[in-house]
Amino acid sequence: MTRRIVVIGGDATGMSAANTALRHTAADGGEAPEVIVLERGHYTSYSACGIPYWIAGDVTGRDDLVARTPEQHREAGIDVRMRTEATAVDLDRQVVTFRALDGDGSEGELEYDDLVFATGAAPVYPPLDGIDADGIHGVQSLEQGEQIVKDLDASQARRTVVVGAGYIGVEMAEAMLTRGLEVTVLDRAPEPFTQIDPDLGTIVRTAMEDMGITVLTGTSVEGFDVREDGRVAAVRVRGERSDGESGADGAVAADIVVMGLGVAPNVSLAQEAGLTVGPSGGLVTDVRMRCLGHENVWAGGDCVEVHHRLSGKGVAIALGTHANKHGRIIGTNLAAGYGTFPGVIGTAISKVCSLEIGRTGLGEREATAAGYGYVTATIESSNVAGYMPGAEMMTVKVIAEERSGRLLGAQIVGRANSAKRIDVFATAIWNGMTLEEMTFMDLSYAPPFSPTWDAVLVAARKGAKAVQDDIPRSPV
Amino acid sequence: MTRRIVVIGGDATGMSAANTALRHTAADGGEAPEVIVLERGHYTSYSACGIPYWIAGDVTGRDDLVARTPEQHREAGIDVRMRTEATAVDLDRQVVTFRALDGDGSEGELEYDDLVFATGAAPVYPPLDGIDADGIHGVQSLEQGEQIVKDLDASQARRTVVVGAGYIGVEMAEAMLTRGLEVTVLDRAPEPFTQIDPDLGTIVRTAMEDMGITVLTGTSVEGFDVREDGRVAAVRVRGERSDGESGADGAVAADIVVMGLGVAPNVSLAQEAGLTVGPSGGLVTDVRMRCLGHENVWAGGDCVEVHHRLSGKGVAIALGTHANKHGRIIGTNLAAGYGTFPGVIGTAISKVCSLEIGRTGLGEREATAAGYGYVTATIESSNVAGYMPGAEMMTVKVIAEERSGRLLGAQIVGRANSAKRIDVFATAIWNGMTLEEMTFMDLSYAPPFSPTWDAVLVAARKGAKAVQDDIPRSPV
Repeated sequence: MTRRIVVIGGDATGMSAANTALRHTAADGGEAPEVIVLERGHYTSYSACGIPYWIAGDVTGRDDLVARTPEQHREAGIDVRMRTEATAVDLDRQVVTFRALDGDGSEGELEYDDLVFATGAAPVYPPLDGIDADGIHGVQSLEQGEQIVKDLDASQARRTVVVGAGYIGVEMAEAMLTRGLEVTVLDRAPEPFTQIDPDLGTIVRTAMEDMGITVLTGTSVEGFDVREDGRVAAVRVRGERSDGESGADGAVAADIVVMGLGVAPNVSLAQEAGLTVGPSGGLVTDVRMRCLGHENVWAGGDCVEVHHRLSGKGVAIALGTHANKHGRIIGTNLAAGYGTFPGVIGTAISKVCSLEIGRTGLGEREATAAGYGYVTATIESSNVAGYMPGAEMMTVKVIAEERSGRLLGAQIVGRANSAKRIDVFATAIWNGMTLEEMTFMDLSYAPPFSPTWDAVLVAARKGAKAVQDDIPRSPV
Repeated sequence: MTRRIVVIGGDATGMSAANTALRHTAADGGEAPEVIVLERGHYTSYSACGIPYWIAGDVTGRDDLVARTPEQHREAGIDVRMRTEATAVDLDRQVVTFRALDGDGSEGELEYDDLVFATGAAPVYPPLDGIDADGIHGVQSLEQGEQIVKDLDASQARRTVVVGAGYIGVEMAEAMLTRGLEVTVLDRAPEPFTQIDPDLGTIVRTAMEDMGITVLTGTSVEGFDVREDGRVAAVRVRGERSDGESGADGAVAADIVVMGLGVAPNVSLAQEAGLTVGPSGGLVTDVRMRCLGHENVWAGGDCVEVHHRLSGKGVAIALGTHANKHGRIIGTNLAAGYGTFPGVIGTAISKVCSLEIGRTGLGEREATAAGYGYVTATIESSNVAGYMPGAEMMTVKVIAEERSGRLLGAQIVGRANSAKRIDVFATAIWNGMTLEEMTFMDLSYAPPFSPTWDAVLVAARKGAKAVQDDIPRSPV
């Protein structure tokens, strides 16, 4: 009987696993497996990360964000079943129960030889008073993106509040600003963008404020005021800064609200089936992306936790690039190949209008949590030679292990052509380099691309000096 | 008696060595040495790499290219003697003979405790018929840059020929095009920009032609036609392509000519003094930048050869970033510190108008010369997510050692925000990474910065596959 692979979830990981499995099997001349993908939504292989740019109008339309349609996948030989939700998994019987979300809602069962969990993540929606009001949106699926676009057009919203100042928060702030709305961003933390340290976060705050965004930090959301017609009217907030900045009633008026508190792995189905979920909330897999204790059950993408190479801990990081990597690795393994995921170091990049933000490795708080004693150094550098047109300053911070000087993390905040330098630090961390070893690396130089000393080298040098001058925290 | 350091050459290496020596000595609480710098030109610490952008008008004026004036250096305690040429060095007596280039041309002698050769490089000027004609320029010193600017203004030149299609050639082609001249670039090689392989060079050619630059390759310069008033009239050329493209007389009309054949180390003074010059034409130093056999004689910058970490050979690479590094290392050592230069891997970056070019490591010809069997792979990738505005394709080529898959080189040709990715490859080469190890590195992803698979990862994956599929050249 033809081997059957069932994939739950038709986005990056699921479709990449399906495609890779078929392509590799074909390349090896093996018998093609039957590959069935169950997707509860309306779209396959789409870029959730692109939604803010669609809303901003930088991307023409929804279809631009779909890398491959269900039809295209079907042409490649994959049995894609849209609007079909997996409702239960029996790992012993090797059976998935599913339900059609459209039409008669009929149910069915599918036996599998191999099963792939690619169930993704969902926006964090705390159970706040009024959170189900019209005009409050998450930004994770294309459907949600579509709702925001429609809502913006229909509601003539003027004022938006973005709850959370992380990646999705700042990107949605940019999108809303681009559309001409008044934008307020709320965050509980003292500075926006807690993925970088507060000393760099304050640069992001200033830049956002200069763009005309109201940034309310140290501010928690208590709930939402809802109009009689069911639509959100205001975000009720509490916090040090909120009194002064948002009026005596502690409410920030809002015609539309974006929940940007991040996402959490969708693991309920897997958990009910008995699979192991780690402390981070993601499914636990081995290095080949196999769920623990099950040779034929795989998982990847936003629903899993991955190994952090510096902390040694499992972390759940929802990011398209990881999801794609996982899919390819799972597909390779499904085709009797050998693929392993080497873990992550927390590299990420984002921007708010013209301000770029990059980070990799551990921030100060993370380094402490992971048990490292560390030293930091922060420098300012020009992105290109100082005399060139378009020269702008960036701030680069490095974090290194005390005594060894091994690079643990780096953060960049700057204007054009600054943040992608984070990949050089990421590659250095990947290789366990010390800052001293980085000091004279042969990085590219020409006036339109960097000063004679690239910012990376300047930061490495200052960091290496800080390591030399440091008195380690613990007796040697 | 106060220790005396004499530095010959007041640009990047010389002034950086002088400054670092003084600063480090002061930081350590030592007695400040006397530091004398002899500079035969009119400027200190200037950016020769910036000259094309000054000529193009991107940089306002000459002074913008001077990082520090003689006066500023003097305020820092350095005895800078401008328009003073070192004419001889007696290494046994530890004496430098110098001559004033202005005024009475008086001569003198200076004893030294430590001597630094920072004599730089000079443009290659082959002894061609007519090469001394007016209107033929090199682009290495600020004085030369100034001559070009003045000549362009005074001569009302319409047509320029740039001899050589390397870094300086393409950058000057851009500068002249920006100033509205008709530009022809000549090169003996089959494709422009031989610092990258011809298969990528052809992309550069097409792009340059699309910009309106006439590119004559496979074309040698035979000499120059000179007008009665002593000014260049045409460049006489020979070659396969020149007949058809430049008229029957084999001459390309030119009102102004830029010699962009690269530079050669200025070593005559050091060589006459008895110091060792390597096969590359540069002075040979040890890892601390000390000239061989002389504990107190140092050299760095464009006048030395440096260790290439992949070929193991000495190479002379004239580049401001290396010159600055050498100066700092020499200064550290002069201040009784310990500094070493770890060598180079040939990283470089350039652009012609909107086309960016990056390279690191070995090209195919260099890999063969260094004795490597190798495998290559070339990919096309978008610079940002394909659906984002401004998405443009780049070409990335990787060269890896056969059987091991160790990365030996990488080359990038593309539009905005592509070439700086070469630093990721440079860091990978620096660490001896294989392409396989690079395949799942945690590089940054967000739609405005890269596709979900960054170009670096796509190239690494295709290269790793090529290594797997390769049949090594030699019997195992």
